[in-house]
Amino acid sequence: MADITQESLDLHRTHRGKLEVASKVPVKDRAALARVYTPGVGAVSTAIGKDKNLVWEYTMKGNMVAVVSDGSAILGLGNLGPEAALPVMEGKAILFKELSGVDAFPICLATQDPDEIVAAVKAIAPVFGGINLEDIAAPKCFDIEKRLQEALNIPVIHDDQHGTATVVLAAFLNALKVKGLAVGAARVVMNGAGAAGTAVSLMLLDAGVTDLTICDSKGVIYAGREHLTDAKRDLAGRTNPRGMTGGLADAIKDADVFIGVSVAGALTGDMVRTMRSGPIIFAMANPIPEIMPDEALAAGASIVATGRSDFPNQINNVLAFPGIFRGALDHRVCHITQEMLMAAARNLAALVEHPTVENIMPDIFDPRVVPAVADAIR
Amino acid sequence: MADITQESLDLHRTHRGKLEVASKVPVKDRAALARVYTPGVGAVSTAIGKDKNLVWEYTMKGNMVAVVSDGSAILGLGNLGPEAALPVMEGKAILFKELSGVDAFPICLATQDPDEIVAAVKAIAPVFGGINLEDIAAPKCFDIEKRLQEALNIPVIHDDQHGTATVVLAAFLNALKVKGLAVGAARVVMNGAGAAGTAVSLMLLDAGVTDLTICDSKGVIYAGREHLTDAKRDLAGRTNPRGMTGGLADAIKDADVFIGVSVAGALTGDMVRTMRSGPIIFAMANPIPEIMPDEALAAGASIVATGRSDFPNQINNVLAFPGIFRGALDHRVCHITQEMLMAAARNLAALVEHPTVENIMPDIFDPRVVPAVADAIR
Repeated sequence: MADITQESLDLHRTHRGKLEVASKVPVKDRAALARVYTPGVGAVSTAIGKDKNLVWEYTMKGNMVAVVSDGSAILGLGNLGPEAALPVMEGKAILFKELSGVDAFPICLATQDPDEIVAAVKAIAPVFGGINLEDIAAPKCFDIEKRLQEALNIPVIHDDQHGTATVVLAAFLNALKVKGLAVGAARVVMNGAGAAGTAVSLMLLDAGVTDLTICDSKGVIYAGREHLTDAKRDLAGRTNPRGMTGGLADAIKDADVFIGVSVAGALTGDMVRTMRSGPIIFAMANPIPEIMPDEALAAGASIVATGRSDFPNQINNVLAFPGIFRGALDHRVCHITQEMLMAAARNLAALVEHPTVENIMPDIFDPRVVPAVADAIR
Repeated sequence: MADITQESLDLHRTHRGKLEVASKVPVKDRAALARVYTPGVGAVSTAIGKDKNLVWEYTMKGNMVAVVSDGSAILGLGNLGPEAALPVMEGKAILFKELSGVDAFPICLATQDPDEIVAAVKAIAPVFGGINLEDIAAPKCFDIEKRLQEALNIPVIHDDQHGTATVVLAAFLNALKVKGLAVGAARVVMNGAGAAGTAVSLMLLDAGVTDLTICDSKGVIYAGREHLTDAKRDLAGRTNPRGMTGGLADAIKDADVFIGVSVAGALTGDMVRTMRSGPIIFAMANPIPEIMPDEALAAGASIVATGRSDFPNQINNVLAFPGIFRGALDHRVCHITQEMLMAAARNLAALVEHPTVENIMPDIFDPRVVPAVADAIR
């Protein structure tokens, strides 16, 4: 980790960032200049002026996504502001391009006010074919996403929510398959109820999970708990079938599945030992998971997944977002629905033909991943 | 022209626009991924979070310019909106990159309201090292530029104004040199008082022109004329030394220099014949100039320049903007002053060692152009 840190700092300083803008066509003489710029470009502008839909065919818009952040919830680092968000968004843009051929450009906003964020994204929307919201704190992220989806005729998704939910559902489906457990029969505990936790919970419910209990930093979320946000109040009404209160240690008892998008060390071996036999543990806090895989296995877990590449079963958004926008752009999808994302999760899961305890997810460099996800977004 | 039109349409459709986003570093395996994205990138974000100035060293910001338009005054085509502006801004971004190595990204705004334009550009400023405003109609362009310059700590210039003024001053200085006429002795008529005409006029005045008369579509601009905008009222107070009224045909009599940034055919041979002997004609309306070069020469003009590449003496903003932003970024200039631009114009002019009637401007592909301009922006 120390090596990677220094290597990454060096790489960023040497190249002055990671992203550049390039021409798809060479412009080395006057004839080329006349085609890409004046006078030739005038005909293209005139054509689009008459029929705005041609912007999809004649410009970069049809393959260009904005990766938008206000820097309020950067990775696990917190609210460091837009400048600190830029290296992450540049990295994300590179992954878009390398994995799916989608061009993506980072937009880090000098405001953390929801109204101003919505106004800025609406203003810049003409040049983009889609909006990927990133690292925007809950609960404002829910409202910002909803308002932009209503205002714009291009797809808008908050990847921390829906990209995460898609890959978690894929992992969940394959883990249950390994265990031989039906979705409707699984008792699931979700730890974390921010952007990711909320979206994962909603997708699990839509996928047929009937016994879900959610904890946040204050413990179990239940109807009537004080100071619940709107999003958590909605979840309280759809989860916690036994009307539990208390903390994670209470909720986890007799559960089949633990899904953590919370903080390092939130889950102990003792808690795992109170779960049903051979539980499934998704410990996705980054970079240090809720429980280390060896500790979870020693406490009886049958399947352990994390967000990291140095353990088996990496659950990584990189499996979802490139394909989601590849599909949305190719199929000119205006609104990415929960149904499309669930189909994408099923396609992702199906890429692992014979899931095992150490192999529930496809590799992020598997060339079948992007087409499988993209095919669901139509 | 018909050929270029079809070739340009074909090129734009084939490539789906002209611009792409690319990674400066290859990302083909997990090790590379760990450096450009999580977990390595976390150290970069943390460093910038502690010292925001590091964003200039560790990210794309230090070499990235936004080319911002609201589509309200696209080329000579008028107000066609942001979608129609995009092919022009993509072309401009390509010229930035090919000529000066500056990365530039088009931002075409879904609003033409000055307050909303200012708010949007302020919001997206964190990822850019400079703002090039483009094809925004006068008079609102003046106010928008001024407000952004005051609000942001990165350079903001409206290229239609200041890029144009810079190249016109360079051409003007060399044309006077060929004629053997001093700047302070030249009687100059400016036709056009929009964004470009206003900026050219102000720069000519700052460069020492003492006898300048400006016409707009209603004729000579004079103090006390009805319905003058603020910008035109200011100019009226500094120009028109003989207190003229009337039209261009009145103003042009006995002038040494005609500078047109107006419309095709605005200047006739008969008007040229009323000018002083061997006048200088800059007919820069695009694509059809105020007067065709052969007609101006037949009427006695000594030097004729246009915006076109198919005649001698092309006066093209491409000679200025790449170097202006190359210099601003390299020298970390927060505000580009009129003095810097005048120095850039002089440097540009000096590249033509022995100006002649058919050679007052350097070639746009001359490799000395960008360094000469950039050297003045510090």
